[in-house]
Amino acid sequence: MRDTHRTYEIRCPVHGFIKLNDWEWGVISQPAFQRLRRIRQLAWTDYVYPGAMHTRFEHSLGVMHVATLLYDAICDKSAEILKSDLAYNKDGLGRDRQLVRFAALLHDVGHSPFSHGSEDLFPSHDGKSYKHEDYSVAIIRSELRSAIEEHSLNANYGLHAEDIAALVEGSAKARQPIFWRDLIAGQMDADRMDYLLRDSYHTGVEYGGYDLKRILTTIRAIRSRGGHPPQLGVSRGGWHAAEGLVLARYFMFTQVYFHKTRVAYDVHLRGALKKLLPHGRFPLPTGESLKSYLRWDDWRVLGLLGSGKGGADGTCLRSRNHYRRVYETPEVSTKKDFEMFEKVKRRLGKLVAAEESAAKSWYKTGPPDIPVVDDHNPKDVRPLSKYSSVVRGLKANNQVFLYVAPENFDSAESRIGEITKHVRK
Amino acid sequence: MRDTHRTYEIRCPVHGFIKLNDWEWGVISQPAFQRLRRIRQLAWTDYVYPGAMHTRFEHSLGVMHVATLLYDAICDKSAEILKSDLAYNKDGLGRDRQLVRFAALLHDVGHSPFSHGSEDLFPSHDGKSYKHEDYSVAIIRSELRSAIEEHSLNANYGLHAEDIAALVEGSAKARQPIFWRDLIAGQMDADRMDYLLRDSYHTGVEYGGYDLKRILTTIRAIRSRGGHPPQLGVSRGGWHAAEGLVLARYFMFTQVYFHKTRVAYDVHLRGALKKLLPHGRFPLPTGESLKSYLRWDDWRVLGLLGSGKGGADGTCLRSRNHYRRVYETPEVSTKKDFEMFEKVKRRLGKLVAAEESAAKSWYKTGPPDIPVVDDHNPKDVRPLSKYSSVVRGLKANNQVFLYVAPENFDSAESRIGEITKHVRK
Amino acid sequence: MRDTHRTYEIRCPVHGFIKLNDWEWGVISQPAFQRLRRIRQLAWTDYVYPGAMHTRFEHSLGVMHVATLLYDAICDKSAEILKSDLAYNKDGLGRDRQLVRFAALLHDVGHSPFSHGSEDLFPSHDGKSYKHEDYSVAIIRSELRSAIEEHSLNANYGLHAEDIAALVEGSAKARQPIFWRDLIAGQMDADRMDYLLRDSYHTGVEYGGYDLKRILTTIRAIRSRGGHPPQLGVSRGGWHAAEGLVLARYFMFTQVYFHKTRVAYDVHLRGALKKLLPHGRFPLPTGESLKSYLRWDDWRVLGLLGSGKGGADGTCLRSRNHYRRVYETPEVSTKKDFEMFEKVKRRLGKLVAAEESAAKSWYKTGPPDIPVVDDHNPKDVRPLSKYSSVVRGLKANNQVFLYVAPENFDSAESRIGEITKHVRK
Amino acid sequence: MRDTHRTYEIRCPVHGFIKLNDWEWGVISQPAFQRLRRIRQLAWTDYVYPGAMHTRFEHSLGVMHVATLLYDAICDKSAEILKSDLAYNKDGLGRDRQLVRFAALLHDVGHSPFSHGSEDLFPSHDGKSYKHEDYSVAIIRSELRSAIEEHSLNANYGLHAEDIAALVEGSAKARQPIFWRDLIAGQMDADRMDYLLRDSYHTGVEYGGYDLKRILTTIRAIRSRGGHPPQLGVSRGGWHAAEGLVLARYFMFTQVYFHKTRVAYDVHLRGALKKLLPHGRFPLPTGESLKSYLRWDDWRVLGLLGSGKGGADGTCLRSRNHYRRVYETPEVSTKKDFEMFEKVKRRLGKLVAAEESAAKSWYKTGPPDIPVVDDHNPKDVRPLSKYSSVVRGLKANNQVFLYVAPENFDSAESRIGEITKHVRK
Repeated sequence: MRDTHRTYEIRCPVHGFIKLNDWEWGVISQPAFQRLRRIRQLAWTDYVYPGAMHTRFEHSLGVMHVATLLYDAICDKSAEILKSDLAYNKDGLGRDRQLVRFAALLHDVGHSPFSHGSEDLFPSHDGKSYKHEDYSVAIIRSELRSAIEEHSLNANYGLHAEDIAALVEGSAKARQPIFWRDLIAGQMDADRMDYLLRDSYHTGVEYGGYDLKRILTTIRAIRSRGGHPPQLGVSRGGWHAAEGLVLARYFMFTQVYFHKTRVAYDVHLRGALKKLLPHGRFPLPTGESLKSYLRWDDWRVLGLLGSGKGGADGTCLRSRNHYRRVYETPEVSTKKDFEMFEKVKRRLGKLVAAEESAAKSWYKTGPPDIPVVDDHNPKDVRPLSKYSSVVRGLKANNQVFLYVAPENFDSAESRIGEITKHVRK
Repeated sequence: MRDTHRTYEIRCPVHGFIKLNDWEWGVISQPAFQRLRRIRQLAWTDYVYPGAMHTRFEHSLGVMHVATLLYDAICDKSAEILKSDLAYNKDGLGRDRQLVRFAALLHDVGHSPFSHGSEDLFPSHDGKSYKHEDYSVAIIRSELRSAIEEHSLNANYGLHAEDIAALVEGSAKARQPIFWRDLIAGQMDADRMDYLLRDSYHTGVEYGGYDLKRILTTIRAIRSRGGHPPQLGVSRGGWHAAEGLVLARYFMFTQVYFHKTRVAYDVHLRGALKKLLPHGRFPLPTGESLKSYLRWDDWRVLGLLGSGKGGADGTCLRSRNHYRRVYETPEVSTKKDFEMFEKVKRRLGKLVAAEESAAKSWYKTGPPDIPVVDDHNPKDVRPLSKYSSVVRGLKANNQVFLYVAPENFDSAESRIGEITKHVRK
Repeated sequence: MRDTHRTYEIRCPVHGFIKLNDWEWGVISQPAFQRLRRIRQLAWTDYVYPGAMHTRFEHSLGVMHVATLLYDAICDKSAEILKSDLAYNKDGLGRDRQLVRFAALLHDVGHSPFSHGSEDLFPSHDGKSYKHEDYSVAIIRSELRSAIEEHSLNANYGLHAEDIAALVEGSAKARQPIFWRDLIAGQMDADRMDYLLRDSYHTGVEYGGYDLKRILTTIRAIRSRGGHPPQLGVSRGGWHAAEGLVLARYFMFTQVYFHKTRVAYDVHLRGALKKLLPHGRFPLPTGESLKSYLRWDDWRVLGLLGSGKGGADGTCLRSRNHYRRVYETPEVSTKKDFEMFEKVKRRLGKLVAAEESAAKSWYKTGPPDIPVVDDHNPKDVRPLSKYSSVVRGLKANNQVFLYVAPENFDSAESRIGEITKHVRK
Repeated sequence: MRDTHRTYEIRCPVHGFIKLNDWEWGVISQPAFQRLRRIRQLAWTDYVYPGAMHTRFEHSLGVMHVATLLYDAICDKSAEILKSDLAYNKDGLGRDRQLVRFAALLHDVGHSPFSHGSEDLFPSHDGKSYKHEDYSVAIIRSELRSAIEEHSLNANYGLHAEDIAALVEGSAKARQPIFWRDLIAGQMDADRMDYLLRDSYHTGVEYGGYDLKRILTTIRAIRSRGGHPPQLGVSRGGWHAAEGLVLARYFMFTQVYFHKTRVAYDVHLRGALKKLLPHGRFPLPTGESLKSYLRWDDWRVLGLLGSGKGGADGTCLRSRNHYRRVYETPEVSTKKDFEMFEKVKRRLGKLVAAEESAAKSWYKTGPPDIPVVDDHNPKDVRPLSKYSSVVRGLKANNQVFLYVAPENFDSAESRIGEITKHVRK
C-alpha cells in the first residue's frame, strides 16, 4: 500500500536536501514536469562556461524550496499582519503554504527548449505574443490537473489546479493568496534567488552570491498606506542584503546572461529552430497543440541538429563557428553613443548578421523598488533606492551589440575603423 | 595575424580558471574533441542527483589542469631524482610537461555516448573487447594528428601524436616519459583526482572531498630498489592525504557510482543502445568506421530516444519506469552471502531482469599500494597500507544487485520473503 | 518594556544564523557564560594552524544549534517511538527541546583556560580527579541557576537548573529526557558534530568534513530489544554518513588534535600553569572556590605569561621554543614497537622532556558502535561496524611521542641512531 | 646543517597553503613579528561576530601570498611594459619579487594592540600624529634588520632593510620598485584583497566576496601618458571584477567595520587604554621607546583588563555593557541631515557619551579611480568610474553615530522623540 505520508529528499548542490511530500512527488513524476529535465537552464551557455549544463528541473525544485523558506520566514516575522490584514488563521497559512509550493514548483513548467533562448518563437494571439508563463498555466490546467487535484492529501485543502494557475499568472482570481505572488514573480522572488545562486554555482563565476540567510531573517510583510494590501519587503536591518541581491543580478547579467558569445548562440538557436519548427513557430498552448508543444525539448532539437538539420544556424551551433561581436555601445549608452551606433550600422550595411539589445533581454534588471520598513516604526516605509546610493546609481543596461559572420569580421572591423577610433574585438 | 603566444582561460567551477595555450586551444577546437561536450560524465545519474549534468569536456580540461599541478609539484620536490634517475634537464621537463598535458587532455577523447554506461557495447577483436582507451588513442593518431603536430609552437618540441598515444596507452614506446603515466592512469592519477571533486560538486554529495592541496605538497618521485625506475608516491607527511583520496573514492562508489537506481539506468541504456546501434555494437576504432563511431554522441541517442526508438529499454529511459532492485548482498559479501544470493536468484527465476555486480563496475576501488617515502630517510619506502589500518581494513566491494521489472516487484519480494527474513525495498 | 518573545540571531561562520530566544539570551549574557569568549577552543593550535583562534563561546552556540537540528529530525522521523516508548506528547517534546538546548549550550561552560590543554591540573577529590564536566554542572547549579529558573518564559515549562545539570552529567535524575543525552555526549553527539566542522573551518584543514545533511535525514530513535529504552542511531540509508563522521574524527585527530607541535605546547601550558596556579591546581568546583575558578581564563593566563611569569615553560610559550619530538611509535603500535620505544627511552634517559600518548588524549576515537536500523524491518538493528569494513579496520591510536628540549635534539637523535635505523626529525 | 633552500608551508583557511622560504621563515620567527599573533585583526568584533578572533599574523601571511599572486600575474601579462618602461630584466624581477614579498609581509608589523581600534593613542611629533606604518618601518629598520640582511639567501640580492622600509612608506628612496607600491597600499592592494576575504571568512558574513581569480587574469601594468611611470590597473575584461572589489569593501564597511556595536567597543577600548598607557599614549617609535612599544600587545591589555584595570571603560569591555547608539544620520548624509544631527546633539547635551563618524573611520571607501585599459588599444585608458555607473553612484559614507550610556538610553530616546519622528533603537 502506498504511504501517502512518505517524504522524499532530493540532493541539491545549492540548497542541500530538498524535501517533497508524496503529493508533490506525484506532480513532478508527470511527463509534463519530467520534460524539464530535458530543458537546459541557460541554453548554450556551456559553450562559454562548460559547467553550465544544469536544467529547469533542478531549478524548479530549488524555487519551491526557496519559496518555502521565504514563506516560513514571513509567517514567523509578520504573523500579526497576516492575521489582521489578510484574515489568515493557522489552517489558512498551512493551505497557502502548499499552494505557494506548487506555484513555485510549476511556474517554469511551460518553458520551450533551451529556456529563454527560444522564446522569440512563441506564436501570437490577437497581436500579442505568447510567453512561457502562458504555457505554464495551460499545462497546470490540463496535463497536471489530475495529479494536483486527485491526490488523497488534497482532502486536507481542496486545492484546484486553477488556484495554482491563477497565482502563477497573478490574476485577480487568485484572491487572498495573491499577496504571495511576489514570491513567484517580483523583485525578491524565489525564482531569482534560486537562479542567481544556481547559475553562479554551475558556471563557476563568483558573482551571483548574496546574503540569502540575512534576507530570510529580515523579509517582511509590510503594511501599505491608504488601504492597499500588504506588500513584500525587508526590515531596515536587511536593506544591504536586498541591495546585495540587486547587485548579484546586475553582475550575473553582464558576466553570464548577456555575455557576447552566449548571446550569439541564442541568435543561432533561434535561426535553427525557425527551420526545425513547422511554420517556424511553436505550437499554440491549447488542446492537441499543447501536447504537440510538449514534445519539443532539448533532446529533440539536439537530435535534429546532430542529424544535420537546422540550416546554416544549425551548422553554426554544431561547429561553434558563431557570429562575432564587432561593435558594442557602452553598458549605459547615451544618445551620442546610439548615434555613433547607427553610423556604424549603416557603414556595415549587409555585413550585419545580428543586432542584440540588452534592453530587451530576458534577464534585464528591473526597477529596484523593494520597500524597506523600520521595525521600530512600522509607518516608516521607504523604497530601497531611498537608502541605497548604489541602487540609485544603477542605470538600466541599454547596451547594443552588432554581430557579423566570422568570415566578415576583418572587413567589418576595418570599415568601423574608418569612422571611429574605438575598435575592439 | 594569429598570435600563437596567446593564452586562453576557461572558467571551471572546481578549479577556477583553466589556462590553455594556443596549441591546446587548437586541439580542443577539433570536432573530435568538441564531441565531448555532448557526452555526459555520469550518464543518467541526473535521474538520481539532478545536478549531475556535467560532461567529459569539462572533466578533460580538469584532468589536464590537475596533471599539470602534479607535474609541477613533482618537478619542484623531486628535481634531484628526475635529473639523476631519468636524465632530465630543464628543456626535457618543459617538453614532457606539454606531453603530459596533452595526454591528460585527450585520454578520454574516445568515450562512447554516456561514458562508461555504454562501454559493454564495444566490438571485439581477436576475442578481446575494445575499451574506450583504444578509441582515444585511435582518435589521437588520426583525427587529432595534424592539430597536434602542425602547430607552430610544436617547433619547440617536435612532438608526435604517437608520443601522446603511447603515453595514454602506457606502451613501451613512450620511453622515458612513461614515468608520468601514473599521472594519467594510476592510484593517484589526475583523472581520479578530478572526477572525485567534479562529480561531488555537481551531484552535491558531500563525499568526494580529499586534501588536494596537501597531496600537491607531498607528492614525490620515489626511487625504487633494485634498479627499477622511480615511481609516483607521497612523502610520509602526506600519507593521510593519500588515505583520504582512497576513502573519497570508496565513498563516491557507494553513494554515486554504484547507486542502485543509477545502475538500473545503465542497464536500460545498454538495452536501448543495442537496438539503436547497427548490429548492436559500436563501430570499430579504425578508418571510416572510426569516423562513424564519432558520430555517436548523447545528442544523437537522446534524439532517437525522444522520437520513440530504443525499444522497451528506451521507453524505460523516457518514462523513468526503471527496474527495481529487489535483492542485494552486503558490500563485502562472504561465501555464505553468495550462496543465499544464488538461492534467491533461483527462486526468482525469470523474474530477474538484471544482475549487476560491483566487482565488475567501472569504478571499482583498486589495490591501494601507493608508496610512501620518509623524507629524512629516502630508503624507507613502504606501501600506504603499511601505515594505514583504514586502508588495510578497506575490503573490495563485491556486492551484487538483483533487479526486476517494476510490475514484478511485489511478487518478487514475496517470493524472496519465503526464503529469507531480510527483505528490503 | 522588555519583549520576552524577542528572538536573537548570531552569525556563525559554520552554521549561518544561530537563533536564540530571550531566555537563552539571558543565560548567555551571564558572566559565567561570557567567560567562554575568553577560552580558546584549541589552546595553542594557532601556533601550528594560525587560523585556529576560535573560542568555546562560538562552539557552545554551535552545539546548541546542531543539537536542535538533531532533536527536530528525530521528532520528525521517530515520532511513533517517542510517543509509545517514552510517553511523549507534543507539549513534552516542546519542553524537552528547550531542555536539550540548554544542556547543549552549557555542557562546556566549566572549561578551564585553553580548554583541554589544562585539564590535567584539576584538583582531586576522594582520589578521583575532577573533570571539566564537574565544573559545568556546578556552574549550572549556582551561577546560572537564577537566569535559568527565573525567566518569565519558564512559566511554560517549570525547568530547574538541576534538570539541565542532570542531563549534562547523565545521571539517573534526568529521568525520561536521559534518552537525549546521546545528543550531548555520545558517538553521534552535537558536540562532536560541531567541533569537527568548526575546528576544520578555522584551521583550514580539509579533513573534518562529513555529511551532516544526510545524518539529519537518517538519524533515528531505535527500539532496543529486551525492554531496554530506545537508543540514538541511524537508518540503514545513513550508515555511510555515520561512517563518514567516524572517519572525520579519525582524520582530525591525527592532523590537528594530536599534531606533534600542538601536543608540545600543551606540555608547556601545563608546566606554566603549575607555576601560575596556587598550589599548582585549579580551585575546587564548590562555593567561593568555584567563583575563584571562574576568574581563571585565557586573558589572565596570557597577561601573566606576557609579564614574564610561568617559569621555563612560560618562556617556551612566549618564545615558541618548544620541545621537539624526537621519537614516535606508529599510530597503531604493536608490542614490538613499544619494546623499541622503551629501549629508546632508556637510552635517552634524562634527555626526555616529555612523553605523550595518544591513548590518553582528550580526543581519542571511541568504540564505533552506532546502531543502524533497517527502515523496512525495524527489528533488524546492527552496529555500524557490522556494515562497515572501514570502521572495523579502524584500530585505536596508541601512538606515543618522546620529546626533548630543542638544545638536546641533535644529541638525542644521535643516541637514537645508535639503536635504530628509523630516525626522523 | 641548516638547509637554506628548505621551504615551509603554512595552512591558511583562506588561501590554502602559504609557502615561505627559509629567509622569510627567519623573519617571521623574530619576536617583533611573532607579536602579531597577539594582535587581533578586528579588535572586539567577536562581541558582534563570535568567529572574528583572527590575528594580524594570519593576515600578514595572506597579504604576502596575494601580493605574490598579483606580482606574478603582472609579470606574466605586462612583461613588455616592465621591460621597456621600467628597465627590468629577469634577475631584477626575481629580486623585486622578494622585495615585494617582504614589504607585504611586514607592512602591518607596527600595529598597536587590537589593530586600528587603538590608533588614536599614537603619540605626536611636530604636531603630526604617528601612524601604525611609522611603527612598521621603524621595526623593519631596527628589530628585523639583521634577520633581513644577514640570511645567506640574501647573497643573491643584497637587499637592505631600508629598501623594504622605503617601499612600505612609499618614499622616493624606493626608486624603481616604487611601481609595486600599489600592491601594498592602493585601490587594488594585496592588503585589501586579503582582509576582505579573511574578515568575511572568520565573521561568517556573506559580503566580502569578489572575483580574485578574475582580477588575477586581468591585472595589468598600464602605460601612462606624458612620460609618467606605469600604473597598476585592469584590462577592460576585468572592470566588473574591479567593480566587485570596490563593492565588497563597501559592504564590509557597513556590515562589519562600521557596525554600531563594534564601534562602541572601539570607544571603550580607547578609554581603557588611556588609563593603562603611561601618560595615555603609546611609546614613540624610536630607540628604547620602540622596544617598550613592542611589549604592548593584546595579551598584556587583556591581562590588565582581566585584573580589573582600565577604569570605567575597562569595566564596559569586561561586562559588555557598552554605550548604545541612540541616533544616526543616513549613510550618505546631506546638509539637512547634519543640521538635524546638531539639533539632536544639543538636545542630548551631556548625555552624549561618544560621537563616531564614518568619514574618519580607518576603513573608509576611497576614490575609485582604478585605471582600465583596452587590451586591443593600449592608449584607451579610462578610470573605472567611467565604465561603472555603480561606482559613480557610490557616495562617500559620512554617517555619524551618537552614543549614550546604557542607563541613559531611555531618557535620551525620549528627548530625541521630542524633536524628531525618526527614533530608532
